Amino acid sequence: MALIVQKFGGSSVADVEKVRRVAGIIADTYKEGNDVVVVLSAQGKTTDGLIAKAYEYNPKPSKRELDMLLTTGEQQSVALCAMVLETMGIPAISLASWQIDFKTNSTYGNARIKSVGSERIRRELDARRVVLVTGFQGINKYDDYTTLGRGGSDTSAVAIAAAMHADLCQIYTDVDGVYTADPNKVKGAKKLEEITFDEMLELASMGAKVLHNRSVELAKRYNVDLEVLSSYERLPGTKVREVKKMEQAQVSGVAKDINLARIALVGIKDEPGIAFKIFRILANEKINVDIIIQSIGRDGAQDISFTVSKNDVETAAEALRQYQNVLGYTSLSVDTHVAKVSVVGAGMLMTSGLAVMMFDALASKKINIQMISTSEIKISVLVNEEDADKAVQAIHDKFFGE
Amino acid sequence: MALIVQKFGGSSVADVEKVRRVAGIIADTYKEGNDVVVVLSAQGKTTDGLIAKAYEYNPKPSKRELDMLLTTGEQQSVALCAMVLETMGIPAISLASWQIDFKTNSTYGNARIKSVGSERIRRELDARRVVLVTGFQGINKYDDYTTLGRGGSDTSAVAIAAAMHADLCQIYTDVDGVYTADPNKVKGAKKLEEITFDEMLELASMGAKVLHNRSVELAKRYNVDLEVLSSYERLPGTKVREVKKMEQAQVSGVAKDINLARIALVGIKDEPGIAFKIFRILANEKINVDIIIQSIGRDGAQDISFTVSKNDVETAAEALRQYQNVLGYTSLSVDTHVAKVSVVGAGMLMTSGLAVMMFDALASKKINIQMISTSEIKISVLVNEEDADKAVQAIHDKFFGE
Repeated sequence: MALIVQKFGGSSVADVEKVRRVAGIIADTYKEGNDVVVVLSAQGKTTDGLIAKAYEYNPKPSKRELDMLLTTGEQQSVALCAMVLETMGIPAISLASWQIDFKTNSTYGNARIKSVGSERIRRELDARRVVLVTGFQGINKYDDYTTLGRGGSDTSAVAIAAAMHADLCQIYTDVDGVYTADPNKVKGAKKLEEITFDEMLELASMGAKVLHNRSVELAKRYNVDLEVLSSYERLPGTKVREVKKMEQAQVSGVAKDINLARIALVGIKDEPGIAFKIFRILANEKINVDIIIQSIGRDGAQDISFTVSKNDVETAAEALRQYQNVLGYTSLSVDTHVAKVSVVGAGMLMTSGLAVMMFDALASKKINIQMISTSEIKISVLVNEEDADKAVQAIHDKFFGE
Repeated sequence: MALIVQKFGGSSVADVEKVRRVAGIIADTYKEGNDVVVVLSAQGKTTDGLIAKAYEYNPKPSKRELDMLLTTGEQQSVALCAMVLETMGIPAISLASWQIDFKTNSTYGNARIKSVGSERIRRELDARRVVLVTGFQGINKYDDYTTLGRGGSDTSAVAIAAAMHADLCQIYTDVDGVYTADPNKVKGAKKLEEITFDEMLELASMGAKVLHNRSVELAKRYNVDLEVLSSYERLPGTKVREVKKMEQAQVSGVAKDINLARIALVGIKDEPGIAFKIFRILANEKINVDIIIQSIGRDGAQDISFTVSKNDVETAAEALRQYQNVLGYTSLSVDTHVAKVSVVGAGMLMTSGLAVMMFDALASKKINIQMISTSEIKISVLVNEEDADKAVQAIHDKFFGE
């Protein structure tokens, strides 16, 4: 007997057959005596279809009206799923965001959650109904619909789990859990039983597209236990929670990110505050910088290299070229053929041997390391893009191999 | 400078081209300085499509969930129309029924309107925005969506016009007004400039499918001036209001109804209360009776004939057969090949010459009259179904011919 929030994405409810499978999972959870709140996305490509339709009517629709249009997608999902549960004899009720007082700020198209009402949901659960709630959407202080941005349904589910003090928030996806590396690309990738929020955040930002980062951050803040699992197989998934069991391996996974580029400024003036000037220029352009390497100055000059998102590299280089006189560098080079490979695991820094294992794995494959960056739970290296897959496999073999 | 409510049906907003035409009408009304509230139905066959989809998911969906699904149709319409108005530089905002506090009772699928809030609409109008409101739907005391039943958008428009004390409620349709007879079938049918609510009600119930009867009843109760006009032509339509101008012709139109059948009970006991018994049996089956003829009793027996809707005739006949002993009739006959032809006009009964003109027209074409019924604003006759069109034309020629 627990309160469980279950979230199913658009592909899990794309058609009547898939909704029936999802309803089967919900029904089983309900029949075990649990209170069940279900958060659904719009079916399949519904949202994309509505966006395309909107552009047909207005190439630049206001975001307020676009949200008004898009919110119909999830409303259809929850109503249809409730109907299928009815055919199974499970009492169910669908609710739109205004009906559960799901409040957000007023940034249409990318709203932030402010609060979620628990009253209506509680009343329906007490009447022993499965409650189906529209994901991805909320209402603002004007009583207008907003949407949370892509992947927002994960965040909806976590917010509702937090508001209802749920025992567990299950995120059903196409994959059956979180792996030590991308199982489609890395031989020997293993499913993790547990992972911490921070590790999950690192893995998500590295391209392991299992959970939307906002949802993990929210789960961490409100300490909501998550579980990532497949809607196709009835198997335990991966639990994401604050503290892992003692026996859990220290290293959780290996991931790569190829969506970044390296900018190098060579022969820059070796004077105090030069790094501040560089990164203020980039901050003014709202560009985030990831790894930064500053060489030791010699002959009154030094080199600074850093990575930015591939999308930002043109803007960053252009801005820095404008300030060449101020910064006084001799040359600027851009390399878009780089990849970041990371090992993620709690307590990483406290175990210096882990970094050595990683460098050893790369050296044995003769992979050159361009940059190194470390955090409490991650060691990342920048390598040539063409070496990335080989690097991931080598590191994974080192940590998870037989 | 007036407050005008404009309602457009599903076929008027079926695709982007049609929405643009509708937006053009709205924009012109707005630019003339009027406050404009627009009520829209779901696009084209959207509602039918959603119903079909619901049945795919559940052959007997709960009406509550069906309404939850169906209300998305109008929400999409209003959002898309707002987007098109934006392209024309007209400030517009779409609102769903919960946002304007459009309250109904809880009869899902066929809800009755209880009240409509004016606050939000007033605020948006004061900001000089066109307000687009979802037709066909409301919310009940549980804060759940309801729908008003087919044709409900007309009623939505009138209810909003009443709540806002609008100067005029324009119902845009496929036809350009109310005619003296069906213009597709009767030669010489003329468009009426004006008609009273009661006349409109009689014409509507006779199959002139211009306005939903509920909307006319509501308009009458709250004295909302209606206008029926075409969304395809920019021409004045027909005004429906309490009092017509003095010079208006007394007879407004001729219509026929073929959706009825006649039941005759022959040789029934001639005793007090027998009619009460018959019609109580029918009332128990929730069957409405229209024209009733009771012959003069002779030899202690009499005949009673009446008409019911074709849909009800089987049920009615079956119920009466069960009570043959109680009612003591000798035979029961059913005739489904009948038609009711009516002349509608204010002050009908006060002008006995009108009935004579009608009977004269029928006699000249040798059309046999089976039953006659009169009301304050209508004279109806029951004829053979095959004579119906000829009867309508003959009567129309008599009243409206050169």
